[in-house]
Amino acid sequence: MSIQRTTLINRRRMLGAMGLMGAGAAVSAAAPVSISIDSVNPASAATTDHEHESTASTSASKQQEEMTSDEMDAMHEAGVKSFPAPTQGLGGQPLAFEMDGDVKVFNVTCQVVQWEHTPGKVVEAYSYNGVVPGPEIRITEGDKVRVVVKNDMPFSTVVHFHGVIVPNAMDGVPFITQPPIKPGETFTYEFQAREGNAGSHMYHSHHNSAEQVTKGLLGAFIIEPKDPTTRPAFDVEYTMILNDGPIGGFTINGKGFPATQPLVAKKGQRVLVRFMNEGLMIHPMHLHGMPMTVIARDGYLLPTPYRCDTLEVDPGQRTEVIIEATELGVWAFHCHVLNHAEGPTGMFGMVTALIVEE
Amino acid sequence: MSIQRTTLINRRRMLGAMGLMGAGAAVSAAAPVSISIDSVNPASAATTDHEHESTASTSASKQQEEMTSDEMDAMHEAGVKSFPAPTQGLGGQPLAFEMDGDVKVFNVTCQVVQWEHTPGKVVEAYSYNGVVPGPEIRITEGDKVRVVVKNDMPFSTVVHFHGVIVPNAMDGVPFITQPPIKPGETFTYEFQAREGNAGSHMYHSHHNSAEQVTKGLLGAFIIEPKDPTTRPAFDVEYTMILNDGPIGGFTINGKGFPATQPLVAKKGQRVLVRFMNEGLMIHPMHLHGMPMTVIARDGYLLPTPYRCDTLEVDPGQRTEVIIEATELGVWAFHCHVLNHAEGPTGMFGMVTALIVEE
Amino acid sequence: MSIQRTTLINRRRMLGAMGLMGAGAAVSAAAPVSISIDSVNPASAATTDHEHESTASTSASKQQEEMTSDEMDAMHEAGVKSFPAPTQGLGGQPLAFEMDGDVKVFNVTCQVVQWEHTPGKVVEAYSYNGVVPGPEIRITEGDKVRVVVKNDMPFSTVVHFHGVIVPNAMDGVPFITQPPIKPGETFTYEFQAREGNAGSHMYHSHHNSAEQVTKGLLGAFIIEPKDPTTRPAFDVEYTMILNDGPIGGFTINGKGFPATQPLVAKKGQRVLVRFMNEGLMIHPMHLHGMPMTVIARDGYLLPTPYRCDTLEVDPGQRTEVIIEATELGVWAFHCHVLNHAEGPTGMFGMVTALIVEE
Repeated sequence: MSIQRTTLINRRRMLGAMGLMGAGAAVSAAAPVSISIDSVNPASAATTDHEHESTASTSASKQQEEMTSDEMDAMHEAGVKSFPAPTQGLGGQPLAFEMDGDVKVFNVTCQVVQWEHTPGKVVEAYSYNGVVPGPEIRITEGDKVRVVVKNDMPFSTVVHFHGVIVPNAMDGVPFITQPPIKPGETFTYEFQAREGNAGSHMYHSHHNSAEQVTKGLLGAFIIEPKDPTTRPAFDVEYTMILNDGPIGGFTINGKGFPATQPLVAKKGQRVLVRFMNEGLMIHPMHLHGMPMTVIARDGYLLPTPYRCDTLEVDPGQRTEVIIEATELGVWAFHCHVLNHAEGPTGMFGMVTALIVEE
Repeated sequence: MSIQRTTLINRRRMLGAMGLMGAGAAVSAAAPVSISIDSVNPASAATTDHEHESTASTSASKQQEEMTSDEMDAMHEAGVKSFPAPTQGLGGQPLAFEMDGDVKVFNVTCQVVQWEHTPGKVVEAYSYNGVVPGPEIRITEGDKVRVVVKNDMPFSTVVHFHGVIVPNAMDGVPFITQPPIKPGETFTYEFQAREGNAGSHMYHSHHNSAEQVTKGLLGAFIIEPKDPTTRPAFDVEYTMILNDGPIGGFTINGKGFPATQPLVAKKGQRVLVRFMNEGLMIHPMHLHGMPMTVIARDGYLLPTPYRCDTLEVDPGQRTEVIIEATELGVWAFHCHVLNHAEGPTGMFGMVTALIVEE
Repeated sequence: MSIQRTTLINRRRMLGAMGLMGAGAAVSAAAPVSISIDSVNPASAATTDHEHESTASTSASKQQEEMTSDEMDAMHEAGVKSFPAPTQGLGGQPLAFEMDGDVKVFNVTCQVVQWEHTPGKVVEAYSYNGVVPGPEIRITEGDKVRVVVKNDMPFSTVVHFHGVIVPNAMDGVPFITQPPIKPGETFTYEFQAREGNAGSHMYHSHHNSAEQVTKGLLGAFIIEPKDPTTRPAFDVEYTMILNDGPIGGFTINGKGFPATQPLVAKKGQRVLVRFMNEGLMIHPMHLHGMPMTVIARDGYLLPTPYRCDTLEVDPGQRTEVIIEATELGVWAFHCHVLNHAEGPTGMFGMVTALIVEE
């Protein structure tokens, strides 16, 4: 399956970059890492932010009593060495469209699915087209767009285009701008992307949203500028959608470490990262090794970009940064609310890496 | 009663703007919406941020088992259609002053009251002059001000003028700058508003403050610039005081949806919004339909205003934005920590709307 | 002991500045304030942010029933009057180095210690060189640095130089850039501080970090600019490291109020404050009486500094501000998440003061 192949290729590259991959370390889907990493469990970890905090602390003490230091280290090592670990399903891939005259038509189906967010951890999720996050919708300023939403879930929903300037009737708020899309129904959103509205936006449920969004009804909605020179240049781009739902735990693009995907760049490249927070908590994202230049908030270019290495991303916000990939190596990239990223038995949840290669 | 009349007028206008008001939808205080909206209950919702999260999720599952999708939708609809719902009491109205020579004298009495934050939900609150938030104190740079605070509560308090540059003895910190104001006592604050200190500030308790402020001892303290041309022009202004106390739940200006007041503007107007966070949690406020330009932080103009649509407002912060009301319609305006704004049975808490009319 | 002497001197100065120190108020280590302040207890307060919130609220009600208003006031007064209260141990002092050729060599030993974070409250902490926060490491752009880390704890650790641009092998992430430093082992970090990387950084554990960092394995790592004129001038500087661990509660530089140290400045001085958040929660720091000008984020100068009085500091962030000490007096300086700073029996945790003297 192509997704898993992609993962394995990345994983080989990752291990090579870390210098950790020996002759016997060849990785295949048929020979998965066998160590139990039950406690690398964002689902339980995420019950709530602060419950987890105290739980982690309690279990840390307990586990430290029960486990030797070497046993703990071994569990940490197993997690890192399995990164990026294969899991079933990969969200956020570009959504193909069809042209109807001069209108780009995207089809989105809302479905309840089983979602493997971390190796071996499968939860019930709500999805657009079967994946979490939903596929990426990408258009250009001025485009005429139609998004046809079919609800195959047993409860109502709506789609709100968060950050996108649309006519009020297309805004996706139940009973204010439209009736809910009931089970089995289809609703068609149609609008023209405004000039001046380029940048990183989102589409997500706006009905029973605290549950529906954190369970997966979300995706990136990116509007490219008509004139690319109006925005800072970059060589490669990544989107990092953060979530912290009660189901699925702390995730980046629907996956928790070690199932997260690394960002890869060649030395000297300019990397655009689009952070999007679809969760209920703040996530200050920390990149090791080099700073990020913050260029846009909620799609709008900042008049005075600034640099940092730990960037707050609040629920509902989208922030774009440019990273100049000047430093070679595998650089940890994680939420710095540390109990969203690491427990006594290893890293989990909101952790990935930027790999800078020659 | 004039407050309820105001609410009803706004509600008619709102329903009209939504196109939802039919012949039979005339609203009167004598004929309140009869549907039980027990679960639209910010008081229980707000026990704590994250308890609520898991509770909401649990009850969502339970309620989804117990309720049909149509029943859930009906509860969502009832909440929206009752917006803005009449409740007893309206805080944040301008406080009249008397002149004593060249001094503006404001009288504030601290009282324990019963406060209806959401239709039918009444809690014990602490108040300035009987309302939550307390009345708005508004002066101009250079003004001489006297605020006479009488404590009619059965426990001590003090008033801190948060953001206002005052002589140290007027700073309102018990045992550092003054003794507490004991039950039955009166304390007089007197100072001259400094030039350069214009903008959005607050007054609130600084004694047992985690309880006293979240329970209602808070209000807006606005200093207008002596020369209005020194600040960005606007046509209409609103203040949104956010709170998340254990009592009263998630509120905007002392009310939870559907009892919140909408913001109303004519198309083309520039709307100044003063966000103030008097709670214990971060609230990223999201406006649908059009961006906000952030112009000031804690009263001080930003050298480089920037645009966004989801603005973090942290406890103690005041942030001013200008919204250009370019888009017609009813635009949801809410905290994007989604469990501060919506549960399985409908929107609640930190939700209101910007209504842009022709 | 010199630390306690320093504390007492500051305390006398503080009481004098508050005008609260009478003939009989002479303070000595031999005659500590005798009132029990059990409930000024950040350790229990900090179990979790929101548990505390509800607990505080519950206990407030209970205690208000049990305590008279005067009894509550007396407990508040006792806390304030004991500030800054002597405790054993003071972290964050400059770490001496030795030269090995042109390399500055710093020695850091990881130890489990007993740490008195608030008078009479002693907890198990993890420490660098026996103190929380660890000693401050301060170098200059271009310096060659060696940090020799000995692990005398019964579990593994690593050191990550948060914000410092280092070769990947020196980045301190277990199993990605190095093996963990096991009990009894020593690991040597060596790098040259890059030009352009001046500012406020940190060093802390990156192994089981949610526990190890919040329990004390953290310290300031400051890189001075080679050319001081490249950064804003100041007269006096302070570092405020914020933490909110399950053990030790809400602290500034390892201490909770009233054991926190005040900041002292002469009127007219420019005070540089380096905020660093090593905790798991956001802490919006509020200074009474005068604004702060934000000049740098994560070490990098902002192109357009701005003013505020309540500054969000998120986990992992370092923000530098300049305060112009224009206003005489004792100005409260605290986290404005009010339940990180005050409970029904008094201020605790993240509270200190800026004392501006003639």
